[in-house]
Amino acid sequence: VRLEEVGEFGIIDRLEGMLRSGSDRIVCGIGDDAALIRQKPGFHSVLTTDALVEGVHFDLTYTPLDSLGWKSLAVSLSDLAAMGATPVCAVVSVAVPGSFDLEGVEAFFSGLKRCGEAYQCPVAGGDTVRSLRDFFISVAVEGEVESGKAVLRSGAKPGDALCVTGELGGAKTGFEVLSGRGEEDLFPESVRRFLEPFPRIREASELLRRLPVSSMIDVSDGLASEIGHLCRRSRTGCRIRREHIPLSREAARWAERKQKSIDPFLYESGEDYELLFTVDSGAFADPEGFRRTAQELQVTILGEITESEKGISVENNGKLARLATKGWDHFA
Amino acid sequence: VRLEEVGEFGIIDRLEGMLRSGSDRIVCGIGDDAALIRQKPGFHSVLTTDALVEGVHFDLTYTPLDSLGWKSLAVSLSDLAAMGATPVCAVVSVAVPGSFDLEGVEAFFSGLKRCGEAYQCPVAGGDTVRSLRDFFISVAVEGEVESGKAVLRSGAKPGDALCVTGELGGAKTGFEVLSGRGEEDLFPESVRRFLEPFPRIREASELLRRLPVSSMIDVSDGLASEIGHLCRRSRTGCRIRREHIPLSREAARWAERKQKSIDPFLYESGEDYELLFTVDSGAFADPEGFRRTAQELQVTILGEITESEKGISVENNGKLARLATKGWDHFA
Repeated sequence: VRLEEVGEFGIIDRLEGMLRSGSDRIVCGIGDDAALIRQKPGFHSVLTTDALVEGVHFDLTYTPLDSLGWKSLAVSLSDLAAMGATPVCAVVSVAVPGSFDLEGVEAFFSGLKRCGEAYQCPVAGGDTVRSLRDFFISVAVEGEVESGKAVLRSGAKPGDALCVTGELGGAKTGFEVLSGRGEEDLFPESVRRFLEPFPRIREASELLRRLPVSSMIDVSDGLASEIGHLCRRSRTGCRIRREHIPLSREAARWAERKQKSIDPFLYESGEDYELLFTVDSGAFADPEGFRRTAQELQVTILGEITESEKGISVENNGKLARLATKGWDHFA
Repeated sequence: VRLEEVGEFGIIDRLEGMLRSGSDRIVCGIGDDAALIRQKPGFHSVLTTDALVEGVHFDLTYTPLDSLGWKSLAVSLSDLAAMGATPVCAVVSVAVPGSFDLEGVEAFFSGLKRCGEAYQCPVAGGDTVRSLRDFFISVAVEGEVESGKAVLRSGAKPGDALCVTGELGGAKTGFEVLSGRGEEDLFPESVRRFLEPFPRIREASELLRRLPVSSMIDVSDGLASEIGHLCRRSRTGCRIRREHIPLSREAARWAERKQKSIDPFLYESGEDYELLFTVDSGAFADPEGFRRTAQELQVTILGEITESEKGISVENNGKLARLATKGWDHFA
């Protein structure tokens, strides 16, 4: 069924039934002028938004709409994780061409709902409108964090350890595989990570519980770029070791197969949505405890935060080089 | 300067400086992963989002970008007003073609900031990305309302008076004038209202303070459509009198000049952003007090809420007819 045949209010009716949630935080959700949300005393609210544009952020020739729905919410949830916050609810704006079919829009929202259920973030409202040509998505997420407990980008200081969760390079591998076509079965984890990334909500709160985390950011634009943001906001430099960067096995295998350098997978794999963070050196007073935590939470130490004057550098086979922190620029 | 030359982070830097606010509610705003907002105890938060798409919601050939910025925020603020809520802050997603110039983006954000200052709603974050062709905007607004004090669409009951603030038809007149070109000077209020609507934030809180308001919605799709939404959510009917609808003088003059019916201006003038609401009949125990309030707040009684079975009807010169509540449908 084409959207033009169902009409705007037909779409809203379908989505309202589909997205209804039992959350006791949402006093009133889809169907009124705005969502009404019960707050927790002693908590700050956290608000963030991300836009995804067809042809720029996603390609519908190889992206299932259901996965696109998941990803649209996941990328904003990742921003909450990077603040140490937990999700409360989301509101979603989509603009779709009238020639689009209702089943496609429903698939999109069903993926979005699936992600919302996985991370306790129900959809509390939105706006579904027509676009002339391209599919646009913007998701805003409200989260919460105990007052005084949010982790900013600006808290790193010289001597802190710079760490990352999980592994890097998977999303870029997934993108290369999907856009090249035909080898999806050989790189299943990467394809999955690119299409349906995991925001590190639970990992973030576990990290904060167990380590003196001084600053944090999510890896959406690639490691080098995020290191740049974090050091710039904290007015520090840093020094990492290339061999410490946890490259995904599939990324290494793809690069070898295609005889390409692994460097873009190490430094420029956007959309991995791991957490890059710094830990106060006090954590190393108990090296055994730190080692255990790092292992259990899959944390890797990349290097050390330095004074700003030392700049941002990477050590590779004993040689020190400046790290180019430009990263993914939408307009460049 | 074209956006492609400045780059994404160049744009963010410019906007960060421009949009910085002194709000003591925003603990941390633009520049981190998400905005951090101090909550007021005893309040619910209210969240809403609206999307605007070039070629569908606005036409850049006659819409100044500065006004577009104002309007993009104002339409979401109007949703807060319709809940009886007051604004806290906004996050903004925009997708613009790389060929767009930086001055245009700055003009857009300066209008948005101007609206935010007028309604105490600072911009706390956002996402500026590239689109292939069209300009796409999505604004999410967080507001707050005392717990238990929000006004929903669903609270109307038979016997309540159906009322509207201000006057209707102005936005449609402004649209007709602007899209027809050349008579802008003759209809200045309508042009202003279409380009830079006034969300009824202050009026809403004043109404709630002085009258037993039982339900409320903002007039974004046109009077008939909003009456339909309100009655449907409240499971009621209603009966209004055509002669009571407060038509703007400029709308009446435009229709006369062009020898057109005023009906579309009465029933289908979307984007007037007035408030449509119902008042418990208890308010009329003091008719003189009600009259004074209505006059001071520029409130007009359109008719009465009825049992659902009676349907939605309009009385015109003694004849009763069914009111078509379809309104503006993006996809129809």
